[in-house]
Amino acid sequence: MSDYAVIGDWGTSNLRLFRVEAGRIVARRDGPGIGVVGREAEAAFAETIAPWLEDGLPTSIRLCGMVGARDGWVEAPYADCPADADSWAAVAVRFDWRGAPLAIMAGLACTDADGIADVMRGEEAQIFGAMALDPRLATGRHLIVLPGTHSKWTLVEDGRVIRFRTVPTGELFALLRDRSTLSPRIAAADADPAEEAAGFAEGLERAGAGRLLASLFAARAMRLRAGRSADWALGYLSGLVIGCEIAEARAALAGDTGVVLIGDARLSDRYARALDAQGIASQSLDGDACARAGLGFLEN
Amino acid sequence: MSDYAVIGDWGTSNLRLFRVEAGRIVARRDGPGIGVVGREAEAAFAETIAPWLEDGLPTSIRLCGMVGARDGWVEAPYADCPADADSWAAVAVRFDWRGAPLAIMAGLACTDADGIADVMRGEEAQIFGAMALDPRLATGRHLIVLPGTHSKWTLVEDGRVIRFRTVPTGELFALLRDRSTLSPRIAAADADPAEEAAGFAEGLERAGAGRLLASLFAARAMRLRAGRSADWALGYLSGLVIGCEIAEARAALAGDTGVVLIGDARLSDRYARALDAQGIASQSLDGDACARAGLGFLEN
Repeated sequence: MSDYAVIGDWGTSNLRLFRVEAGRIVARRDGPGIGVVGREAEAAFAETIAPWLEDGLPTSIRLCGMVGARDGWVEAPYADCPADADSWAAVAVRFDWRGAPLAIMAGLACTDADGIADVMRGEEAQIFGAMALDPRLATGRHLIVLPGTHSKWTLVEDGRVIRFRTVPTGELFALLRDRSTLSPRIAAADADPAEEAAGFAEGLERAGAGRLLASLFAARAMRLRAGRSADWALGYLSGLVIGCEIAEARAALAGDTGVVLIGDARLSDRYARALDAQGIASQSLDGDACARAGLGFLEN
Repeated sequence: MSDYAVIGDWGTSNLRLFRVEAGRIVARRDGPGIGVVGREAEAAFAETIAPWLEDGLPTSIRLCGMVGARDGWVEAPYADCPADADSWAAVAVRFDWRGAPLAIMAGLACTDADGIADVMRGEEAQIFGAMALDPRLATGRHLIVLPGTHSKWTLVEDGRVIRFRTVPTGELFALLRDRSTLSPRIAAADADPAEEAAGFAEGLERAGAGRLLASLFAARAMRLRAGRSADWALGYLSGLVIGCEIAEARAALAGDTGVVLIGDARLSDRYARALDAQGIASQSLDGDACARAGLGFLEN
């Protein structure tokens, strides 16, 4: 039986634990999100890790994500930006769990020149992981972007997170698609990819003008007056919000570099196309690999 | 028994009929919205107007709004912009209803330089009415704005509607307030007006930068990190979306004039404050008076 460590990403919706032996992930176990278990967090953790404990205690446990939020297991602080991997790790909450050393990693916080605050919790592990995986990202300035429900746009310089901005594009798109009068109700099974792609391209073009609110209604009016389809309209809304996100976030961060995307392949590809439409180069990194690296395990 | 005419605004949610005698409104009756009655529109109309028919047939009936939409009573066309009151009235759908001449007024449509379509149905009566009520609005260039769920920004010149833009600010705000993770769930009864006003002002200030998407998350982060209240957050979101609407719509219409607001007093006041924050003068007109004037009845 080998020594093993446990790293985990415990977000609102999912717990994902990885078992690491000799620098390699050898097993994974999934459990309920911290948003589901609330005050029963420790019991849920114990149940998820239980089979591994039969092999003895892990040498260390590190968890990141909403597990450290006010309504999580134990509240971990936010490290203030600028922050590097060491200053972030230094403020983790550490305690002894059944004899094993457990760390709940901190989030990050920043305040912009206008006094507006921003926070992240969980994504920072992927950002520090990206810089650990690719040394080129640990020198010079880069924009590291994690697209999603709440996209995180992060300006890093010489290995430090300088500032970041949260853009709730995915949440807004879901509201527009599922709850608004602007979007048609269509079954995903009937979707026409070519129509959707045409709408996406037209939405990106419209976003170039940097006017989100004044461009939304076209998703409805173009169906009424210009023969556009329901699939076109959903593609248009997607292109519009992603295009506006890119223009706004780059301006907000004064980030004039190329972009590093971290996330799942499908969403990263969509962002890469949107960035390309604005003449911005990008590269994509795998989110899981970055998260593991950020928690201290560089897979060989 | 006097001769009388009937004018009415039949929108998605409400039917409002006015009885006009000798140029004055003498009675009003309310009925169900066209979105509720659907194919039973004629029966609903007959039931709402029934008590007046006991005095004989009206000399004329004019209806505006979604009553003329595809899913309304009888579909009326859209008049293409530029359009004046005469070209709009010319394309109304007219038919004989139980011996009385009935007109369902047209909507308006326009297409911008990029080929993007827009439509309105119902608001045009208020716009033509405003120009009929105030001759100063019928000469020169003006921006006439109807704030609401789908705000209509309209550029008029010498009595004609040149072009317009729909901005779904009210719908977006309701989604953010009621359905998003950005807004706190609070009971309106507990609202603190001073906190709300402070948030509104800060949202307007933020909107000056013209970045809606990248400024939304502050409604949450400022509660977490800067001690802002739930009321502040709702005010902030309201100020942000209204401020962005103003900046975007004026840019989209190239409308560099002062603004004429048509609508209810409370909402018009909110917009007047937002316009003032961007250095734009405004005046307010009563929506009901404008609608009646647009349907041909200038009250004395």
